[in-house]
Amino acid sequence: MKERVYTLAQQELPRRWYNVLADLDRPLDPPLDPRSRKPMPPEALVALFPKACVEQEVATDRFIDIPEEVLEVYRLWRPTPLLRAANLERALGTPAHIYYKYEGVSPTGSHKTNTAVAQAYYNKLEGTKRLTTETGAGQWGSALAFACQAFGLGLTVFMVKISYHQKPYRKAMIELYGGEIVPSPSERTQAGRDVLAQNPDSPGSLGIAISEAIEEALSTGAKYSLGSVLNHVLLHQTVIGQEALAQMELAGEYPDAVVGCVGGGSNFGGLMLPFLYDAKGRGRAIEFIAAEPTACPTITQGEVRYDYGDTGEMTPLLKMHTLGHDFVPPPIHAGGLRYHGMAPIITRLVEEGIVRPVALDQVDVFRDAVLFARTEGIIPAPETAHAVHAALELAREAARSDRPRVILIGFSGHGHFDMSAYQAYLAGELVRTSPGN
Amino acid sequence: MKERVYTLAQQELPRRWYNVLADLDRPLDPPLDPRSRKPMPPEALVALFPKACVEQEVATDRFIDIPEEVLEVYRLWRPTPLLRAANLERALGTPAHIYYKYEGVSPTGSHKTNTAVAQAYYNKLEGTKRLTTETGAGQWGSALAFACQAFGLGLTVFMVKISYHQKPYRKAMIELYGGEIVPSPSERTQAGRDVLAQNPDSPGSLGIAISEAIEEALSTGAKYSLGSVLNHVLLHQTVIGQEALAQMELAGEYPDAVVGCVGGGSNFGGLMLPFLYDAKGRGRAIEFIAAEPTACPTITQGEVRYDYGDTGEMTPLLKMHTLGHDFVPPPIHAGGLRYHGMAPIITRLVEEGIVRPVALDQVDVFRDAVLFARTEGIIPAPETAHAVHAALELAREAARSDRPRVILIGFSGHGHFDMSAYQAYLAGELVRTSPGN
Repeated sequence: MKERVYTLAQQELPRRWYNVLADLDRPLDPPLDPRSRKPMPPEALVALFPKACVEQEVATDRFIDIPEEVLEVYRLWRPTPLLRAANLERALGTPAHIYYKYEGVSPTGSHKTNTAVAQAYYNKLEGTKRLTTETGAGQWGSALAFACQAFGLGLTVFMVKISYHQKPYRKAMIELYGGEIVPSPSERTQAGRDVLAQNPDSPGSLGIAISEAIEEALSTGAKYSLGSVLNHVLLHQTVIGQEALAQMELAGEYPDAVVGCVGGGSNFGGLMLPFLYDAKGRGRAIEFIAAEPTACPTITQGEVRYDYGDTGEMTPLLKMHTLGHDFVPPPIHAGGLRYHGMAPIITRLVEEGIVRPVALDQVDVFRDAVLFARTEGIIPAPETAHAVHAALELAREAARSDRPRVILIGFSGHGHFDMSAYQAYLAGELVRTSPGN
Repeated sequence: MKERVYTLAQQELPRRWYNVLADLDRPLDPPLDPRSRKPMPPEALVALFPKACVEQEVATDRFIDIPEEVLEVYRLWRPTPLLRAANLERALGTPAHIYYKYEGVSPTGSHKTNTAVAQAYYNKLEGTKRLTTETGAGQWGSALAFACQAFGLGLTVFMVKISYHQKPYRKAMIELYGGEIVPSPSERTQAGRDVLAQNPDSPGSLGIAISEAIEEALSTGAKYSLGSVLNHVLLHQTVIGQEALAQMELAGEYPDAVVGCVGGGSNFGGLMLPFLYDAKGRGRAIEFIAAEPTACPTITQGEVRYDYGDTGEMTPLLKMHTLGHDFVPPPIHAGGLRYHGMAPIITRLVEEGIVRPVALDQVDVFRDAVLFARTEGIIPAPETAHAVHAALELAREAARSDRPRVILIGFSGHGHFDMSAYQAYLAGELVRTSPGN
């Protein structure tokens, strides 16, 4: 019988992160100071981040040891399973073999905990008492709340006001883990007060919440934590890809395509970077596909230039794909993919032709997410559903051309917190945000 | 370093269910016919259930093979992990060792899928085209919807009307898996029409929904499926206990106490029955503790007698602990524990002094659930939280008496669908349903 699940033993948990900076042909462009717009030395970032993370941001060691304290928390849910989607293959009538690496088993239901735990640990180690961050849909906020709880750190989360009211369950989860939540824009920061002065009814945005979280950190001696985009965040996520490499080997297959969804790029990077390194070593080619929403087409429609990470222009500028730091995407259900910028690492790999971006409409995405749930039984988060749809398009093409292909999906999280989106889709209430087909 | 998680390999998945009927000193009293109130031959049950399940209901083989097709679906999430709650132990300052068997990794987030898959399979095998069932909080309905999807069966779920409106996400999950939902009481059955004629605004109850599901099955040639109480349901759940036995052995420990929550008794039975058998063989004693809510104190306050399983008096009568089939519990957040009856197997073990029941108030229960989430990171479902609280009381007693004890918790499901209950608790809005302390 075909295996359905490939599991690794506890002792096979990776003990090092893979650092792609060691293998780039030329270094990434440095961040620029938000005020002078001149190259910023890494040391300047320690006002916001712990020293260890700042060092990782520019490190060129190929492998970086994962601290034992971080491994101990990872063990609560890692190694995560790799599954073969055999029912789905049958339903599609495709010769393709479809695998998915399932990060939904984490305590908060997504991959975000991989970096949250590492960041909380380094902060704890360096004496930080409290972190600040922002959250939109709430996946990142709840992951960091879990991690801060694990290491005894305080946490203040600026939650986009409209999500604060629309996503009460994620809010409850953050509070359950002991985090403080401030609906953003708030009266608590100058950035928030400025927005409220102009528009007292502002629903908020991720860009505004980031500005508030950074201002709060800088003005109260706390540190700030970001859940995607930055090099050290992608580094921490490489446990995903390293495990998946070992599991594909157990399955006796090698992927022709690795597919992930991209908001800031961390779950996709975490999965694909170890495969990129491995494939290079073997002299093999893998197609890396980054799936983004047509409603927030950062890579496919944005331009590559220096831009801020927030609305208030408080973050360093990064050279990345951007839709402009004042871009406001239409409300779509994959809240985790509604970000104007992209991880500089992913931007570079797109420029080099290694990563191929695709933009997908949420209606098509949910149609395939429903098919996935009905065949495989696991319900994808709306973000993850983008990766699923992109992979299924490959599998359908494989069926049309009768070409066997091995496809690996980065399954970043489960949809148990997102059933209202499925409800809207099943009721025919989900709107296309693109012309569609 | 202490291990945090004990995992079994795929090939260690149990291949047989353990049948406690083989080891009871005297047989259980037979069900009675709902009309004649005379003992009912098992064959009479095939109008409702597949023959294989009816046979299992009275089988006396000690072990019953799990069909390969069922194992194949189990492999999607089984074996489930056993975890050591080391952080929680430290927080309590207890010499007790606390383990928990985590069923929340199933596709619908609870143990219910263990029997849902088996029942759907046997029905499929015997030519059933469609199942009917009832659901309150929605855990059972979504588990059976998942299982029916896996085997290509239709499903109609009568969902208690007040839950239908209050728990839209579970409803969406059932529909996502292709199940049809009918808010109960409905115009679709005589049982429903009778209730509506008396009270058009009836919020419904589990007892009414069961009557409707049975009537629908009998009148349309479908079969009916029950998620707890019956012998074959507890049988299917014994994969939990068998895995936990192997995992405790990996941990090098043997439990002094096994604790579970009880609604109808299936998750508790599934965990404790294999331990009961094993302990007998080793000549060891284990304390088995069944935790129920003070709001629905079936074992601690009910009487043991023949009673119906539903309001409409359509089910066979079972000899069990019951609060009366017209008992209406106050609304508490652990919807899965709001049932007036108890599995006859558990009733027998209580009578024999093997199982000790405790009744717990939801306010105390949620207090410890929050402690669990804040130390271990995994959020218990409100039902599971009853087991957690009962176990923590043991651990506290162990601390007071400085007596090392090994405690095993049946962790039946995660609380990701129940964050509104935590929200209510954290806001101080949860009411005591008992005098308290």
